[in-house]
Amino acid sequence: MTKIDSSEKILTLINTFDVDQDNHQLLMDLLVQATTEVMRHLDGFISANLHSSIDGNYIVNYAQWRSQAHFDAMLANPEAQIHMKQASDIANNIKPLLYKVSHSECISR
Amino acid sequence: MTKIDSSEKILTLINTFDVDQDNHQLLMDLLVQATTEVMRHLDGFISANLHSSIDGNYIVNYAQWRSQAHFDAMLANPEAQIHMKQASDIANNIKPLLYKVSHSECISR
Repeated sequence: MTKIDSSEKILTLINTFDVDQDNHQLLMDLLVQATTEVMRHLDGFISANLHSSIDGNYIVNYAQWRSQAHFDAMLANPEAQIHMKQASDIANNIKPLLYKVSHSECISR
Repeated sequence: MTKIDSSEKILTLINTFDVDQDNHQLLMDLLVQATTEVMRHLDGFISANLHSSIDGNYIVNYAQWRSQAHFDAMLANPEAQIHMKQASDIANNIKPLLYKVSHSECISR
């Protein structure tokens, strides 16, 4: 289970993929495979959380990495690059942005 | 602490605000205020998680609501509308999109 907590000094990647509805499941399957086979085994990986938009036009990966250096090492990893190239061939646009958590508010449940 | 768990049937809002760097803190303060004073007290609110992009050009609210009906009721709430109007006056663009979690992968920590 992924936790979001503003007291933790980690790097958050929010990567938005624009995708045709006909290719949505194909891209989702590829991203799940990339996560389970490659990403989760890399140093500094904390989590990846794949979201499907209700309208079917977007996929978001909300991912957590231990640091910017770990994230940069992932970008340079040849296996990761193969998966990123496959995703970019299916998606119409990919917008990866890096964040820190500034404020987290949650009711108890 | 916010949890992301694909087994939970909740609605996720990922709302991306484009903002000038000079207005970043102003918008962040407004969104924190809206969250603590209004949003968290509405029926169906689970969490709001405000993120600042490392480059200072974006703020993302990763928010969880119990259902689409609860989210729609928030959109129609007059107090919430005041805050949304204030945010739209500061941001250059606001892109709210609704998601479900399809896959969540996390290492133990």
